[in-house]
Amino acid sequence: MISFESDYNNGAHPHVLQYLLDTNDSQSASYGYDEWSESARIKIREACRLENAGIYFLVGGTQTNATVIDSLLSQYEGVVSVDTGHINVHESGAIEASGHKVITLPSHEGKMHAEDLLTLLKKFHADPTCDHMVWPGMVYITFPTELGTIYKSFEIEEIQNICKQYNIPLFVDGARLGYGLMSDECDFDLPWLARHCDVFYIGGTKIGALCGEAVVFANNNVPKHFFSIMKQHGALLAKSRLVGVQFDALFTDNLYFNISRHAIDMAMRMRKIFSNAGFSLKDSPTNQQFIVLSNIQMERLAQYVAFETWEPIDDNNTLCRFVTNWATKESDLETLKNAISSI
Amino acid sequence: MISFESDYNNGAHPHVLQYLLDTNDSQSASYGYDEWSESARIKIREACRLENAGIYFLVGGTQTNATVIDSLLSQYEGVVSVDTGHINVHESGAIEASGHKVITLPSHEGKMHAEDLLTLLKKFHADPTCDHMVWPGMVYITFPTELGTIYKSFEIEEIQNICKQYNIPLFVDGARLGYGLMSDECDFDLPWLARHCDVFYIGGTKIGALCGEAVVFANNNVPKHFFSIMKQHGALLAKSRLVGVQFDALFTDNLYFNISRHAIDMAMRMRKIFSNAGFSLKDSPTNQQFIVLSNIQMERLAQYVAFETWEPIDDNNTLCRFVTNWATKESDLETLKNAISSI
Amino acid sequence: MISFESDYNNGAHPHVLQYLLDTNDSQSASYGYDEWSESARIKIREACRLENAGIYFLVGGTQTNATVIDSLLSQYEGVVSVDTGHINVHESGAIEASGHKVITLPSHEGKMHAEDLLTLLKKFHADPTCDHMVWPGMVYITFPTELGTIYKSFEIEEIQNICKQYNIPLFVDGARLGYGLMSDECDFDLPWLARHCDVFYIGGTKIGALCGEAVVFANNNVPKHFFSIMKQHGALLAKSRLVGVQFDALFTDNLYFNISRHAIDMAMRMRKIFSNAGFSLKDSPTNQQFIVLSNIQMERLAQYVAFETWEPIDDNNTLCRFVTNWATKESDLETLKNAISSI
Amino acid sequence: MISFESDYNNGAHPHVLQYLLDTNDSQSASYGYDEWSESARIKIREACRLENAGIYFLVGGTQTNATVIDSLLSQYEGVVSVDTGHINVHESGAIEASGHKVITLPSHEGKMHAEDLLTLLKKFHADPTCDHMVWPGMVYITFPTELGTIYKSFEIEEIQNICKQYNIPLFVDGARLGYGLMSDECDFDLPWLARHCDVFYIGGTKIGALCGEAVVFANNNVPKHFFSIMKQHGALLAKSRLVGVQFDALFTDNLYFNISRHAIDMAMRMRKIFSNAGFSLKDSPTNQQFIVLSNIQMERLAQYVAFETWEPIDDNNTLCRFVTNWATKESDLETLKNAISSI
Repeated sequence: MISFESDYNNGAHPHVLQYLLDTNDSQSASYGYDEWSESARIKIREACRLENAGIYFLVGGTQTNATVIDSLLSQYEGVVSVDTGHINVHESGAIEASGHKVITLPSHEGKMHAEDLLTLLKKFHADPTCDHMVWPGMVYITFPTELGTIYKSFEIEEIQNICKQYNIPLFVDGARLGYGLMSDECDFDLPWLARHCDVFYIGGTKIGALCGEAVVFANNNVPKHFFSIMKQHGALLAKSRLVGVQFDALFTDNLYFNISRHAIDMAMRMRKIFSNAGFSLKDSPTNQQFIVLSNIQMERLAQYVAFETWEPIDDNNTLCRFVTNWATKESDLETLKNAISSI
Repeated sequence: MISFESDYNNGAHPHVLQYLLDTNDSQSASYGYDEWSESARIKIREACRLENAGIYFLVGGTQTNATVIDSLLSQYEGVVSVDTGHINVHESGAIEASGHKVITLPSHEGKMHAEDLLTLLKKFHADPTCDHMVWPGMVYITFPTELGTIYKSFEIEEIQNICKQYNIPLFVDGARLGYGLMSDECDFDLPWLARHCDVFYIGGTKIGALCGEAVVFANNNVPKHFFSIMKQHGALLAKSRLVGVQFDALFTDNLYFNISRHAIDMAMRMRKIFSNAGFSLKDSPTNQQFIVLSNIQMERLAQYVAFETWEPIDDNNTLCRFVTNWATKESDLETLKNAISSI
Repeated sequence: MISFESDYNNGAHPHVLQYLLDTNDSQSASYGYDEWSESARIKIREACRLENAGIYFLVGGTQTNATVIDSLLSQYEGVVSVDTGHINVHESGAIEASGHKVITLPSHEGKMHAEDLLTLLKKFHADPTCDHMVWPGMVYITFPTELGTIYKSFEIEEIQNICKQYNIPLFVDGARLGYGLMSDECDFDLPWLARHCDVFYIGGTKIGALCGEAVVFANNNVPKHFFSIMKQHGALLAKSRLVGVQFDALFTDNLYFNISRHAIDMAMRMRKIFSNAGFSLKDSPTNQQFIVLSNIQMERLAQYVAFETWEPIDDNNTLCRFVTNWATKESDLETLKNAISSI
Repeated sequence: MISFESDYNNGAHPHVLQYLLDTNDSQSASYGYDEWSESARIKIREACRLENAGIYFLVGGTQTNATVIDSLLSQYEGVVSVDTGHINVHESGAIEASGHKVITLPSHEGKMHAEDLLTLLKKFHADPTCDHMVWPGMVYITFPTELGTIYKSFEIEEIQNICKQYNIPLFVDGARLGYGLMSDECDFDLPWLARHCDVFYIGGTKIGALCGEAVVFANNNVPKHFFSIMKQHGALLAKSRLVGVQFDALFTDNLYFNISRHAIDMAMRMRKIFSNAGFSLKDSPTNQQFIVLSNIQMERLAQYVAFETWEPIDDNNTLCRFVTNWATKESDLETLKNAISSI
């Protein structure tokens, strides 16, 4: 059965896998010092137009968030996130396990509002008891968000300006970065983003790779002994070639962006299929689509294609998530369309 | 240049990589629920002759050690290890980062002596101030050890009996498990080991895989919510197929053991090459060989092949490590032999 | 200047200090084994009508909360609290520093609503992704709350029933316990409370002592090796007599309750003074009173007595906190009354 | 029965207690801002001849060690201590609970040898795999040591020089500081010590106080937001006057040093009693004395006075610890002498 359940249902892009095959017989250094990791770093720096970026390859998203956040915070500091942020909901307390509080702001369709952040920071620093509280030490946003939405450039600029004003770093979780940047509604590109935050990561696991996230410290700001911090977090891959080779392939001939764009094309087509069939959809310009199904429709459709129930709306209706990715085929959408028309 | 530096210099075994290729087009579930992880679990249970073992796939050794140890200890407990144990030396404090002390015993060529363990536990429980100390909550040993040595079955039995007596679990770090089991000096097999500890892991990264370790909870003793603990440690792979497929291949047609045996054959041949050439070797029946080189020999040999300096012996001599693995070729050893004869 | 700033502005009750003096020349055991700690335990068990309660003396509130919560949670669990809870706001992240998330519910004048808790737990356990989330492992409430309010017995019963249903412990932070129990609006007593939660503490620092909190594990449910956990948290007092003697005095001749009642009497008189003078007060039946002052009034009044600004209401008005305690004198209130009439 | 078991068997020095009484009726600020804490700080700065020292009052030794060490280390660093160090043995893993490894060196009668430290640091920084190890981030020594011994000034100078060379701070645990400084064998004073380390603490709990340790950051080197770090560790006393008043009394009219000297006088007299009676003693110029008793003698003596068994020497003999303190009376020693002569 065709699955639209998550970004993780498919293997790797054929080019990525082929490059693992092509390079397999060579011996190489380990722990990030292999030649493909180095080649990938050069290509990512070019793509970001950052000459001196520090780039590190980790395996997965939770690991990356926990390692980066721990590396940037002092022990008395926490990380500010909207309450729907991945670190606050779906990482089994990985941030707290390294000793840090997630300080929450309300989510606006998955996004942080700059004024909420400013209010928090102003109030904190005006509070005479702030020494008894957790210091807001960095800001975490996701791009795209967990709800498929994306920030406009002015929204990120506002957040960045507040961070600068309070001298705390801005970290962008880009687990689905390509799907955001390639969205029709995105009004900036990778180099712009790289200049408008302190650290971000380029998600590979959800976009063409078997595993792997590329952390980019944009401003000569790699935390001291980040290598050791990675090791301590169990995030240092021995055969680093595994991720290095994959990112080297993804950043060759624009592959990362092309396959991201493909997923967006498929998602937009999927929106039309649902809306033409009269379903109600939430706004989402990226690869995750949220559709309201009656519970009867939900049950019937589940006999034809796989998808995720997101949350109940009322006793009779449920919000469901359908995800496209780099591997979604037009024929998959035909299958979906036929399934919808038959329920 | 041919490298004997570490277990990590090569890619994956061709069968493993081929199986990644063969399965790539299928969609699958994630987070450990994919079909290949399930198939690999069945094969590993058969290989261990354990019907009910709980089996989890993680990415690397440090991550696996930190996650398993954290899952088994209460907050007032520490883990007992010899001082040369990997968790005590080369994991950047990952165990302590999760709040637990590594309680050390002296290393005897990398091994723990049962009597040392018994003395520690007896002394601890006889100490009227033990409530002020870290409780020894589990025992960690490596098989083979970091120094290439292996335990005899009676040695593990002795340790296991002490653990049972004190009701604390025994954890065997098997990052190089195959190389130990396939050694000529090993007097037990995988099912025996599986019955003589509480939890162990089967190392994949060092034996044929690009990454991956298979944790085996042998006695219906999976810690409660181990899945969440993995997630919290950043050790839950989204596309779990990556490791599942690899272990499924490694445990098909005895591949894991055959390629482990090959590495041992190569290591024994390497020993002869060095000893025939008059070099002094430390005892090691596994894939890591430790050779005494004069510093002049070391410099010269390094122009022909890559290897690791282990530790200085005196001002003029250094202990060096040469590692074989599943991918070592006879021609690599010829290259080494020629290099040795030319220095 | 008379201070109504906090519960901490005064020293110890004279009887408490006298008993420190009376017992000073005796030698005693340490670490909780002194005779006065044991005597205090007996008296507290009697006061609670709990024959088998496990009772431990710690030094302060944050330390007590962090130690008790850490002792009751597994590593994959968090503690549920309202967002205004002391552990969530004013403990500098002590809970997170021991690895645990504070899972927040909305505050209703400082109190947790049972239906909010039930909704959280139901939703959590119905969520197919709950394995990726922090498990709600215990419930924390404060009595009285940080806003001076108190729970009715039926409200605590509702919360306790939900905890029982989900098999998670209920912990009551009683930093100001006496001030709650002695309030006119409280419809239960200490023995009732002791039967309606799993663990609570009796605050001494805010009620007559120089320092000290008495943790009561009500149901033969002392966590394994709680002594070691206290030590690990730096919460094990060497000269435990310091706290033991004080609680022994506080639980002699009903002193703890009598002086708590005195603080309530003073607080109620203070309410009348403010309301007679036309000020707006928040509902609070305990020793903390929250009064709306115009910023001009606030400035003027601050020249006569000390108090705390709580939070701005609008550009011209501020909510201010005035605290009575066991040491508040009628003449202090006269001073306050005169000050108010002169501004 | 007279007890020589520990430093904790007595209450407070009468002057200390009297000052708690004298100041009890005054209202004061909390959390370290009370007038007596400030007065004590001024007196301690004078005693140390340090104009700008940052001084903080905590409650007990383990808490102080855990808080100070956590405040000085980055997450990838550990603290170097001899294996008999209090933080390594008797703090229930408090250091590891805050995420940091205790890196051990061999103990030489409780002391660290400078050459051992230098070897460790040299070896660490020469090791190409040091990035995989815990970084030695500070040095911890105790003065006097847990075995009653003390460092000579040249030994501390050597250690300090190595610390400076490697740019890591030196922390001196002075739980028994007065007993060390007042020893006949001590060749330096408090101002000298204050100039020869980065941070130390002046133990109060063992010397005249009911509780309290004064941390002295000697060189304008208070860690950022140390107040919040204290709070996070549960080490911020609400009624800080409790410790402030006690240290204010202890540092008035040389009380701290006078009563320390008294304990030394008593200890030296105790040595004579034991040695005149033919017992074998370990070298110790401070208030802890370690005597070899046959097990029969031990049993008999225990019927007259209380002391601590330290460790078995062989099947028939045990090393026992007898502790004097500021409160030891000459008549106590007479009792001991008589007891010895009657066994």
